[in-house]
Amino acid sequence: MVTTVPGPKSQELIGRLGYIQNTMATQFFVDYKNSHGNYIRDVDGNNILDLFNQISSVSLGYNHPRFAETVQNPENLHQFINRPALGFFPGEDWVDRLENSLLSVAPKGLNRVVTMACGSCSNENAFKSVFMAYKRYLRGGTDYTEEEKRTCVMNVAPGAPPLSILSFQNGLHGRTMACSSATHTKWPYKMDFPHMDWPTADWPELKYPLEEFVDENRAEEDRCLEKVNSLMEEFKSKDEDVAAIIAEPIQSEGGDHYSTPYFFQGLQKLCKKHHSYFIVDEVQTGGGSTGMMWYHESFDLPQPPDIVVFSKKAITGGFYFTDELMPREGGRVFNTWMGDPSKVLLMETMVNVIKEENLLNNCKVTGEYLGKGMHQLEMKFPDQINKVRGPGVFKAVDVKTPEHRDKIMRQLRDRGVLVGGCGDRTIRLRPSLILQEHHADIFLDIFEGVLTDN
Amino acid sequence: MVTTVPGPKSQELIGRLGYIQNTMATQFFVDYKNSHGNYIRDVDGNNILDLFNQISSVSLGYNHPRFAETVQNPENLHQFINRPALGFFPGEDWVDRLENSLLSVAPKGLNRVVTMACGSCSNENAFKSVFMAYKRYLRGGTDYTEEEKRTCVMNVAPGAPPLSILSFQNGLHGRTMACSSATHTKWPYKMDFPHMDWPTADWPELKYPLEEFVDENRAEEDRCLEKVNSLMEEFKSKDEDVAAIIAEPIQSEGGDHYSTPYFFQGLQKLCKKHHSYFIVDEVQTGGGSTGMMWYHESFDLPQPPDIVVFSKKAITGGFYFTDELMPREGGRVFNTWMGDPSKVLLMETMVNVIKEENLLNNCKVTGEYLGKGMHQLEMKFPDQINKVRGPGVFKAVDVKTPEHRDKIMRQLRDRGVLVGGCGDRTIRLRPSLILQEHHADIFLDIFEGVLTDN
Ligand code: FES
Repeated sequence: MVTTVPGPKSQELIGRLGYIQNTMATQFFVDYKNSHGNYIRDVDGNNILDLFNQISSVSLGYNHPRFAETVQNPENLHQFINRPALGFFPGEDWVDRLENSLLSVAPKGLNRVVTMACGSCSNENAFKSVFMAYKRYLRGGTDYTEEEKRTCVMNVAPGAPPLSILSFQNGLHGRTMACSSATHTKWPYKMDFPHMDWPTADWPELKYPLEEFVDENRAEEDRCLEKVNSLMEEFKSKDEDVAAIIAEPIQSEGGDHYSTPYFFQGLQKLCKKHHSYFIVDEVQTGGGSTGMMWYHESFDLPQPPDIVVFSKKAITGGFYFTDELMPREGGRVFNTWMGDPSKVLLMETMVNVIKEENLLNNCKVTGEYLGKGMHQLEMKFPDQINKVRGPGVFKAVDVKTPEHRDKIMRQLRDRGVLVGGCGDRTIRLRPSLILQEHHADIFLDIFEGVLTDN
Repeated sequence: MVTTVPGPKSQELIGRLGYIQNTMATQFFVDYKNSHGNYIRDVDGNNILDLFNQISSVSLGYNHPRFAETVQNPENLHQFINRPALGFFPGEDWVDRLENSLLSVAPKGLNRVVTMACGSCSNENAFKSVFMAYKRYLRGGTDYTEEEKRTCVMNVAPGAPPLSILSFQNGLHGRTMACSSATHTKWPYKMDFPHMDWPTADWPELKYPLEEFVDENRAEEDRCLEKVNSLMEEFKSKDEDVAAIIAEPIQSEGGDHYSTPYFFQGLQKLCKKHHSYFIVDEVQTGGGSTGMMWYHESFDLPQPPDIVVFSKKAITGGFYFTDELMPREGGRVFNTWMGDPSKVLLMETMVNVIKEENLLNNCKVTGEYLGKGMHQLEMKFPDQINKVRGPGVFKAVDVKTPEHRDKIMRQLRDRGVLVGGCGDRTIRLRPSLILQEHHADIFLDIFEGVLTDN
């Protein structure tokens, strides 16, 4: 480390950017050209071990040579220059691209997919898909009425029905209005914005380590499932039927909160019972760092979820869906671009590298090593950190207070390690899939030093 | 033309794509590599004059050499490989990029800008910006209450207030929930989706040619302005204050409906009167094809709009905004990526080409030629087409019925010209900025042939 972070050059650029837009979230400016692998280099020349990876959206580290090849291959040039309106005019290779990228790693039982450009439009269109399917079920085969056609355009019933999406306290699903209505993390994300008053259920508050509190945790999950069921009944009785439940396999932004497979199995059962749909939001958990491409597959669901949403590490946004969720008309799950073929091309490269280099296994192996080291620190500093948790390299640990967390994160950064915060007092690691044991060692050393000094 | 459209290869690919997703809107598959300038080449080898340009989102035609240079320049490679979370970790050159691209063509009086990835998240965040500003005004300097902090996360008042956005019948602002609540075009875009019940005002129904119906049109615009005013009063009296009016300078998807500068001046006055904000959505009208970078500048507003939204031809999404609309906290106009530097880089190239080649003037000159030809056809086929209209190459013409429109569009396509439909029975031309008179001639010839055969 050459300077503390943000260094003088970053500060100067933050000053300049401040004339253009709000910079209160800006951490530092980055020399992307000279960032490599797990190291992000800031404009002041600091090489920082990046365990946050652009809010968990970098899979293969910085400037991976295979991505460079993909961009530089003259055969691919046209993909980066011409952006199609994919819903009208897809490119010659589009079906191949989808098959070689997204469909080649589809969650078990799901073989349909649609691309979008980010996690928010993915969830928004997932919601539209379930609203359509739920109303098809209610209509039982009758056609839209003229009144529905007239009223939907004016945002009133019956064309615009008061259907709802059930979400969880501390869940995050995006920042556009429907996604944000299903989001319940921090007040700055929501203050002063109108939202849909949809049902919000409790997420189980499990005790860690999970294997030591099996009975208590089961009771807590049963309590939450019962609450979900009663909310679904309550909203149906007010004619605001719950068309879908949406959940993250691991509540990430909310604080890396886990549940057991039993909870997700229970949610799926409740969906079946109420003829609702089950949307699993893998925007943060998907893409491999848990040691699995899609973390919900660890839940042993008897049937696939109805929809699995992705973005971030998947490079393209979008969602997988079942036959039942297929729109019956054109242009309804739609926008101008519907994703970006150049991102899908990069995703194909990523998928190939993951397979060739067995990176899911790397995440398991490195993750086990990293977890062991973190547990040792937990035993050494029990008054400062606890609840070390997480599959693969998708790790988290709680600290004492929000202030303690922010201080530790600052100190880590000034000593050369970038991590993320989540929840009130959680530190999350969102490493790339190419993290090695020696990177884990560097983090563990520096973390130990910071804890020692606190 | 080698085949009708879609030809056999397109049909085969549509069949394959149909196993993956809904294809009912798919027109044909494209050989993007071999599409050039104003010609899109389909997979069956048809070279089609493209006057629709990916729903109005292509500025310099296909495979423009300057875009190729930008992608192939090794200095830029890292921009296409590494996608930052711009709100936290912008790149070294980010301020320069913004200054050289978006800010170098900013609408008069607006020198702040934030990037987003598409038109929908741009409008959603424009709405958030006005909600924050409007509540700041109502609060008069007092801080958020604990009750507001608690309730906003649960989507209920007072933290989630029932503020509204006033929009217009036949307006379109995007497909995510808040944008879609301000959208009132076709029922398939909205059917079965819950929406916010926000105020919808009439858009003036002007008589064409505008210069012949000045008095009638003024009366009609006064009627609509009065309606806007009374809706603003009505919603304020129900405590659902209108935080902003959003309008397109030309209602595009809704049917290429125009207003006069007087109407926009009147809307701005009403915003000032009610302490609301004025959002001008230039997603389709912006980017040069009207002969101006931003069409609202033709309205001679005494002050700039509070927000001007862009996407499509701008390559990046985002919006310009005034000082007053600057968020006072970080992370509130925010999402993971907040746009994409590689798109802003391409936009910079586009802006340079527009300036160097004087393409705004080209749109005026070619547009005048094209308009003259279309007016001649209007005189020749008065029973089939009317209301030829539009600045620059941003042209439209109405035909007899929706069926007549669809038939004409199909025939044009089979003879080698791609146009777009909008409204009930309008044909819209959304040419690139590099359209030349000889392209206009080709269109006019083929259009005349089609009209002759109908
Ligand atoms: S809402 Fe997803 S890219 Fe704009």
